[in-house]
Amino acid sequence: MIKVGIVGISGYSGEATLELLLKHPLVRVTYVSANNTKGKISEFWPQLAGKTDLVCDKFDIKKAVEQCNLIFLAVPHTVSMEITPKLLDAGVLVIDLSGDYRLNSATEYKMWYGADHMDSKNLGKAVYGLPELHREKIKKSKLIANPGCYPTAALLALAPFVSVYGESTELIIIDAKSGVSGAGRKATFAFNFCEVNENFKAYKVLNHQHAPEINLYLSKISRKLPKVHFVPHLLPVNRGILETIYIHLGQKVTLNIVYDLYKRFYKTEPFVRVLPPGQQPELKNVVGTNICDIGFAVSSDKNMVVITSAIDNLIKGAAGQAVQNMNIKCGFKETTGLE
Amino acid sequence: MIKVGIVGISGYSGEATLELLLKHPLVRVTYVSANNTKGKISEFWPQLAGKTDLVCDKFDIKKAVEQCNLIFLAVPHTVSMEITPKLLDAGVLVIDLSGDYRLNSATEYKMWYGADHMDSKNLGKAVYGLPELHREKIKKSKLIANPGCYPTAALLALAPFVSVYGESTELIIIDAKSGVSGAGRKATFAFNFCEVNENFKAYKVLNHQHAPEINLYLSKISRKLPKVHFVPHLLPVNRGILETIYIHLGQKVTLNIVYDLYKRFYKTEPFVRVLPPGQQPELKNVVGTNICDIGFAVSSDKNMVVITSAIDNLIKGAAGQAVQNMNIKCGFKETTGLE
Amino acid sequence: MIKVGIVGISGYSGEATLELLLKHPLVRVTYVSANNTKGKISEFWPQLAGKTDLVCDKFDIKKAVEQCNLIFLAVPHTVSMEITPKLLDAGVLVIDLSGDYRLNSATEYKMWYGADHMDSKNLGKAVYGLPELHREKIKKSKLIANPGCYPTAALLALAPFVSVYGESTELIIIDAKSGVSGAGRKATFAFNFCEVNENFKAYKVLNHQHAPEINLYLSKISRKLPKVHFVPHLLPVNRGILETIYIHLGQKVTLNIVYDLYKRFYKTEPFVRVLPPGQQPELKNVVGTNICDIGFAVSSDKNMVVITSAIDNLIKGAAGQAVQNMNIKCGFKETTGLE
Amino acid sequence: MIKVGIVGISGYSGEATLELLLKHPLVRVTYVSANNTKGKISEFWPQLAGKTDLVCDKFDIKKAVEQCNLIFLAVPHTVSMEITPKLLDAGVLVIDLSGDYRLNSATEYKMWYGADHMDSKNLGKAVYGLPELHREKIKKSKLIANPGCYPTAALLALAPFVSVYGESTELIIIDAKSGVSGAGRKATFAFNFCEVNENFKAYKVLNHQHAPEINLYLSKISRKLPKVHFVPHLLPVNRGILETIYIHLGQKVTLNIVYDLYKRFYKTEPFVRVLPPGQQPELKNVVGTNICDIGFAVSSDKNMVVITSAIDNLIKGAAGQAVQNMNIKCGFKETTGLE
Repeated sequence: MIKVGIVGISGYSGEATLELLLKHPLVRVTYVSANNTKGKISEFWPQLAGKTDLVCDKFDIKKAVEQCNLIFLAVPHTVSMEITPKLLDAGVLVIDLSGDYRLNSATEYKMWYGADHMDSKNLGKAVYGLPELHREKIKKSKLIANPGCYPTAALLALAPFVSVYGESTELIIIDAKSGVSGAGRKATFAFNFCEVNENFKAYKVLNHQHAPEINLYLSKISRKLPKVHFVPHLLPVNRGILETIYIHLGQKVTLNIVYDLYKRFYKTEPFVRVLPPGQQPELKNVVGTNICDIGFAVSSDKNMVVITSAIDNLIKGAAGQAVQNMNIKCGFKETTGLE
Repeated sequence: MIKVGIVGISGYSGEATLELLLKHPLVRVTYVSANNTKGKISEFWPQLAGKTDLVCDKFDIKKAVEQCNLIFLAVPHTVSMEITPKLLDAGVLVIDLSGDYRLNSATEYKMWYGADHMDSKNLGKAVYGLPELHREKIKKSKLIANPGCYPTAALLALAPFVSVYGESTELIIIDAKSGVSGAGRKATFAFNFCEVNENFKAYKVLNHQHAPEINLYLSKISRKLPKVHFVPHLLPVNRGILETIYIHLGQKVTLNIVYDLYKRFYKTEPFVRVLPPGQQPELKNVVGTNICDIGFAVSSDKNMVVITSAIDNLIKGAAGQAVQNMNIKCGFKETTGLE
Repeated sequence: MIKVGIVGISGYSGEATLELLLKHPLVRVTYVSANNTKGKISEFWPQLAGKTDLVCDKFDIKKAVEQCNLIFLAVPHTVSMEITPKLLDAGVLVIDLSGDYRLNSATEYKMWYGADHMDSKNLGKAVYGLPELHREKIKKSKLIANPGCYPTAALLALAPFVSVYGESTELIIIDAKSGVSGAGRKATFAFNFCEVNENFKAYKVLNHQHAPEINLYLSKISRKLPKVHFVPHLLPVNRGILETIYIHLGQKVTLNIVYDLYKRFYKTEPFVRVLPPGQQPELKNVVGTNICDIGFAVSSDKNMVVITSAIDNLIKGAAGQAVQNMNIKCGFKETTGLE
Repeated sequence: MIKVGIVGISGYSGEATLELLLKHPLVRVTYVSANNTKGKISEFWPQLAGKTDLVCDKFDIKKAVEQCNLIFLAVPHTVSMEITPKLLDAGVLVIDLSGDYRLNSATEYKMWYGADHMDSKNLGKAVYGLPELHREKIKKSKLIANPGCYPTAALLALAPFVSVYGESTELIIIDAKSGVSGAGRKATFAFNFCEVNENFKAYKVLNHQHAPEINLYLSKISRKLPKVHFVPHLLPVNRGILETIYIHLGQKVTLNIVYDLYKRFYKTEPFVRVLPPGQQPELKNVVGTNICDIGFAVSSDKNMVVITSAIDNLIKGAAGQAVQNMNIKCGFKETTGLE
């Protein structure tokens, strides 16, 4: 039984992490905090009434360190890099759900997040916590950068393909659609019900901070790869990401070859389902789970491959993957608390 | 061609009023203002791009008076009573969409809106602008208090009944359900998409400020009436109000008697549809229109009558009714610009 | 480890039951069937891919009896009463999710379900499976009639009150709102997305087959009770029921008295949460759980009590309650597989 | 005043056409029919109660010809080609909203619609009714093939670009998202509320019958163009199409050059809005209108252009465009009844 804490419990990712951990048989949640909220958890998350007596207060490094072996940071970017070094110095393991440690260069960070990186020391040491690609490194790291929601769906969909066809890949386009919880829990006019419901739009077209994250980890699989073109859209649903990924190839492939490649690549993975030809991922099949569904199509001239992937942005795209990382790091069975 | 202005163009009611007025053949919109927004209308309401060149600025009483014969106030309560006396003094007609002039007592106003009424002089002079009940008074008034959205649906559903059965009415319960635009356009956390979508709840149970408004105008029809019990709920739709109204009677009635009463009462009304026995109102039949649909059921023991009414909260419940009032006041055909 | 089967796996209730049972540590699902669907479960419920290898075929009494100790019937009414006697005769326990065994009179059944009851022998022996009221009887019965979704939310909300105030209760009105999955999984035009989305309406006004079910089990608590007036509405959400219940009393009560009564009544119940004064149930707090939330308000003249209750119609209103009944019947901890 | 009829009034396109025509000042609707529905229009389209007394019956060629100068066919494909030759022979103008006359080859038709074309005589004579491209031809034709919803949004978004850059266009990908009304009004399980709400998926990936329609009319603008890759998705909204179109170029362009090209191309068009750099189309700005909004982005290396377009699939994508075509054909002002 390890003792874990969650910093940033007032957001959707923090709450989702808490829900999973309360059901996890091998951990005890001993500490929760948030900056603008205090009191019993069930007062601001009424769905948790009767399920926990945890009380929330402002973050206090001393309490956090005393009470926890491992801490989940579900805070906005820039906040994480203030807290992380203190926790690591005190010997507390960190799983960071923010974007602060995902890009391994302070320059890139500045460019995409608009702030100076204050913890370059740990920036290089963080391990990118996508278990299907980095399981062994995760086991050894004290700081796990939990992947972004869009990159999770993109990298799982692209990794097998570029590992084989990277050299002949000429163009990658990611048309991504996300439910509203992906934007976080904000009192922002733009996310009011009437602005989002019965609506749909693209945003940050070719200019989203998750694009460099995708490029970085794809480039580790295949060096010659062209940079992806990434366009996110806002879907009028609470949860779920679906990405339709277009790959233009300098050679020809068939649907069965692609399908077989993915079946092999993910053969032993508990949280990736490779759909048979003819079947397409749907949000409703993955929402509420830690699963990523992946489907395929190939054009009649065989040089355009369409790969579609779907996840729950708050689970495989955030809290669930964070728990999966904890399981790996702590030597638990990887699926514990996630089925 | 009269010149009209809209104060409070950044809210949903203001925008809905503008959309109607831009299509109205007998008026010209000459003035728009809002407190926190300035610039071309199409910059913050992109759906109006190409439809108007109006420019918005902070409210300026001098400009408003110079440029308009009639002004729609689509501002929050308490703001209206600051502006209204100045407009009336300058000879400008006022149609007020806020709650400031609906209750005819400063004491009641204080009790329900939590603020002192600053314009008791005009409070008594305002006419409650429900055309189906007060058409003749509307013609003569210079200040029209446009009814609340819930009271519009409630009063149209109840007026015929209590005009005949008021004496034997023992209990009235209004179970009301409203779309989210009824809450106005706010950057409030409670109305974020993820809080409202796939959700439903009651709020201000037995304690909503529209209850005294309903009681006041019902009492003018039948003095002995019991006060209504009013419970509003938040529906996960953009627009529309449906109210299910339960009347317990000290005598017996039949479905056909009730139906005939309503058919007669609303025989010449262009915006009320009385549905035949067996048919129930639905939001989708009224959203986007100035129409109120009303349907009925009677219990097998004949002393419980269920009346259901549906309107578009932004049209018959706000902007459309305001335009209808303008039409009446200005001597236009009542349906002009509303069909 | 008991062996259980599900008949009617192609509907929403059947699928929800299977999802719960697949996670239940003390049962093994050994048999599933459906009339119009056959093949691997994951072919028509893709969300279950990788979670079960069960294969579905037409119902076969011989197989069912051989392979199961207990069977859940998630079939339409009238189908259940054909199968139930055969299962009981073969010694298989039955939990029936249809309406066939809820009313204890064949005459009432005929009146509300429009069909002759074919199994009057067992009709009188069935126990109504609302654990919070009938736990002891459930333990002893071989045929459990799982309550309807609306009656579950109504009876849990009303039972404590009428147990004390039944004699002075003058009127009960239930204004109920249900998500669309409550209608079952049908290729019916009326439930097409465009007919339901952004819409809201009442249906079967004062004429729904769940009204007699509510009346029957309330009358067992307090004999003098007036019959309820019941009006259901269709909510544009997938899951969830919220009922706003109005009780007119011949005496006066206070909010605190009512709250205390409920706190005591449900003190040891794991699946009922009594909300403190000022807090109202919301669908999002119960959807996905087996919990019923109950909240209160009392009118200023103290003789109108408003009780609001919320459940997930597919869990506490169907599959979850069925599993709870199985747990009771089989001597498992009541919350097993439901937390 | 011309006399018009609508065949197929029970579908969404038929109803939308009727709604527009009832408000059109220069036409009178004299005939409506549908195959599976009969009686007063307001009985199956209750939102039209009080707005029309039209009565619907099975299609009758004799009545249709006697009562109409022009007929809108809002019927499924294959039905249109049975009726069209008879109407044309009788001198009635036809605007066909089905897919029957959009592809100008019987072979292509067979390939994509799976049926033999029964009216090859008129297939070659039909004019493709996209006013912004074919206005002059529309004026002269007696049979107008109203464009598909997806092709309308695609062609308006692509025409200006390929007219200039067709030669250097190397790849076109259309990632399209449509509201559910685009699927027509069917009692199909796949479009039940619970299957679509809170869900999202791709369908007919690289295999939709609108792809050849797009290719055909693009090829008339620029002969050397590569065939488009087209992937449609089902959005959980009632109305609206948004297409995100990716063009890979063999040369470099800038955002301003693209923007200026479109501004010029659509300068005098009443129903196309070219959005300034930085602004993106949203469904809510076009739903309920006949407008197509178009926005742009260009990659930093200047050879990837992203064009986004939005329409209301039932208006500019069907009924509105049909009325626009009628206006052109009949010599009315093109915007009559559409503003």
